[in-house]
Amino acid sequence: MRIVSSLLSGLLSSADQVSPPLDAEAHCDLPCGVYDPAQARIEAEAVKSITERFNASDDELFRTRAIVIREQRAELLKHHLWVLWTDYFTPEHLAAFPNLHDVFWRATKKAGEAKKTADVAVADDLLNQVAEIEKIFWATKNA
Amino acid sequence: MRIVSSLLSGLLSSADQVSPPLDAEAHCDLPCGVYDPAQARIEAEAVKSITERFNASDDELFRTRAIVIREQRAELLKHHLWVLWTDYFTPEHLAAFPNLHDVFWRATKKAGEAKKTADVAVADDLLNQVAEIEKIFWATKNA
Amino acid sequence: MRIVSSLLSGLLSSADQVSPPLDAEAHCDLPCGVYDPAQARIEAEAVKSITERFNASDDELFRTRAIVIREQRAELLKHHLWVLWTDYFTPEHLAAFPNLHDVFWRATKKAGEAKKTADVAVADDLLNQVAEIEKIFWATKNA
Amino acid sequence: MRIVSSLLSGLLSSADQVSPPLDAEAHCDLPCGVYDPAQARIEAEAVKSITERFNASDDELFRTRAIVIREQRAELLKHHLWVLWTDYFTPEHLAAFPNLHDVFWRATKKAGEAKKTADVAVADDLLNQVAEIEKIFWATKNA
Amino acid sequence: MRIVSSLLSGLLSSADQVSPPLDAEAHCDLPCGVYDPAQARIEAEAVKSITERFNASDDELFRTRAIVIREQRAELLKHHLWVLWTDYFTPEHLAAFPNLHDVFWRATKKAGEAKKTADVAVADDLLNQVAEIEKIFWATKNA
Amino acid sequence: MRIVSSLLSGLLSSADQVSPPLDAEAHCDLPCGVYDPAQARIEAEAVKSITERFNASDDELFRTRAIVIREQRAELLKHHLWVLWTDYFTPEHLAAFPNLHDVFWRATKKAGEAKKTADVAVADDLLNQVAEIEKIFWATKNA
Repeated sequence: MRIVSSLLSGLLSSADQVSPPLDAEAHCDLPCGVYDPAQARIEAEAVKSITERFNASDDELFRTRAIVIREQRAELLKHHLWVLWTDYFTPEHLAAFPNLHDVFWRATKKAGEAKKTADVAVADDLLNQVAEIEKIFWATKNA
Repeated sequence: MRIVSSLLSGLLSSADQVSPPLDAEAHCDLPCGVYDPAQARIEAEAVKSITERFNASDDELFRTRAIVIREQRAELLKHHLWVLWTDYFTPEHLAAFPNLHDVFWRATKKAGEAKKTADVAVADDLLNQVAEIEKIFWATKNA
Repeated sequence: MRIVSSLLSGLLSSADQVSPPLDAEAHCDLPCGVYDPAQARIEAEAVKSITERFNASDDELFRTRAIVIREQRAELLKHHLWVLWTDYFTPEHLAAFPNLHDVFWRATKKAGEAKKTADVAVADDLLNQVAEIEKIFWATKNA
Repeated sequence: MRIVSSLLSGLLSSADQVSPPLDAEAHCDLPCGVYDPAQARIEAEAVKSITERFNASDDELFRTRAIVIREQRAELLKHHLWVLWTDYFTPEHLAAFPNLHDVFWRATKKAGEAKKTADVAVADDLLNQVAEIEKIFWATKNA
Repeated sequence: MRIVSSLLSGLLSSADQVSPPLDAEAHCDLPCGVYDPAQARIEAEAVKSITERFNASDDELFRTRAIVIREQRAELLKHHLWVLWTDYFTPEHLAAFPNLHDVFWRATKKAGEAKKTADVAVADDLLNQVAEIEKIFWATKNA
Repeated sequence: MRIVSSLLSGLLSSADQVSPPLDAEAHCDLPCGVYDPAQARIEAEAVKSITERFNASDDELFRTRAIVIREQRAELLKHHLWVLWTDYFTPEHLAAFPNLHDVFWRATKKAGEAKKTADVAVADDLLNQVAEIEKIFWATKNA
């Protein structure tokens, strides 16, 4: 994905050079209008990576740090999702995506669950749920 | 860019389905290995958007909130850049990009400057400097 | 209310002394089981009080501080509500209170709105919505 | 206690409807005037609950999380107490309650001690000391 | 004060040379044993400097930022003082300095007052009160 | 180091008495002008002390707390260093100390390393690197 995306961006920049607008979209509650679910996805990736590294290590110091840091990343993930849910999404979006509340509720609950387990499958579920949110987000942005 | 990227991701997912690895790359100091300069870019976009909205408003309440919130976003931007500089980049990267320190120093200083002005040009400079960092980052990731 | 409650607690403690369990109910994501919507209510009261004091003052220093501090209290309020929504409430609760998602969504959106206005009526709405959440909460606790 | 309190509140609201004022009392340093020792008590309850759950578990992951989270709750408890001590209480209060400083000093020290032990008795002492503070607080509020 | 403190430290180091152990006297609640009132003093200096700069400026943007940042520094100052009061000082210290509670209570209240005024004299009082605490602190450290 | 620094400061204060202005040289990004590397040094001392206490204990609870708290202190140390690097130092300073970037890069990397090890030698290196920064800082201040 990264590779393709950078190939593509190479093509784009040499090709049309119309220069993609840095399309900002609100993420603080000014609101500034710069929302981006990538913030949540990055934390979900961290949660998975930390879980894997926790499992691969038998060093007390490392494992303790992994637990603590994963706790922080998962909490931050919940925060980013809550912000999107409350601040970005509107009643119109809800009408178009009636499962909106449910998707966010399950994803934030999953983030809590991911703090409590060494099971990487939970982190994978979490990534999938965040991906589902990204899909909804971009569908509403591009609408 | 977004549109292209989502067309592409549509193509990809229907086409090869080799499933793009969620290639995480370190952003906490475990380290978890999930670094992504998008975190910094999103804050820089917010700084610009807030500056524009500050200029466009003459409401005391809104303007005060804009100043406060921009302060936070710019500080968070500095933090994300500092983390990349210290935690992600290595002596090998520095050998390949001898201006690395200078680029980060100027970008973090620019973020401080952006807190202090209503001049959107400063926010634009900031975005450009973050873009320069993104370019170096991905060059090292894809190396 | 306070007075009555303290009379009552006097009666209770002299009367049966079965000693009221410090019935904790989870508010951190251990979870520790100590949830209490009073945390949200206290912040909502602060939001209202600050708004009133902001309106009553014409001192630049005070008004700026009021805006900043209200921003923090309202954000903290959102956080407490999000935690209740995600961490305390269960699918069983949702079945009993089908408007659960909607109530929380509107209350957290209202908290965002309260940051942006000098209108005390918004803070009153916010207090009412938090009271609605407290009612649901205690109904589920006492079920 | 909860049950009685909610019966009572039922009685009250149907009976006199003079509607208990949402008597806010300062907890931020605006000050907004909304102080409430319930914030401290909730954290003390959490400290006790976490200690009990820590003792009841032999899972490394859970125990580590419990230690970390209790640390945060106890620190937050100290913060709430410090705020009450410095911001709410006045020289007049001190004249009426000459042991005020001592009560707060011992309670905040006890919160520190509670971070360091698996002994639930320390958490019980802590709850009692917070209850003592609540008593003083409400005595001054209702004066 | 600085001058006196360095004269004094000159006298001390040339005089007895029992050499104040460098090191470190607890400031986190491990405790690590590294307490140093310099942390509080630095914030008090910042509070004064910001107040002066606030008064010297008539730029809305700068003045708003000054108010916000001073709020943070004064709050941090209170925090450092509270930590010293609760975590460093012992009943033995209190016996030797019976005004200990009062000194800390007044200093933390003064820090709150300093948030609310443009009067530099308040910041000066604050610096003096922190200096008084430093004196007590070092007297107990060197005892 | 402390001894040397105080000898030196003794010499200085008796010698020229031009009296290093107390005051205060910016540590928040107002900037307030109150920078002081003592903030970083105190955290580095804490990191060392915690590491020693971690090694000396075999209590699970204590060791876990030590790891968590050291993580926080080391992160705060990094923050203080980053602030000095970006906010205090100027291009003129860099011209006078061409290794400036390198010194800060190594010190912040060392702080990250210190989170990950029980080796006190790493904490000693860290203290030395912070001392090197203090030397540069005061050389520029007194210039």
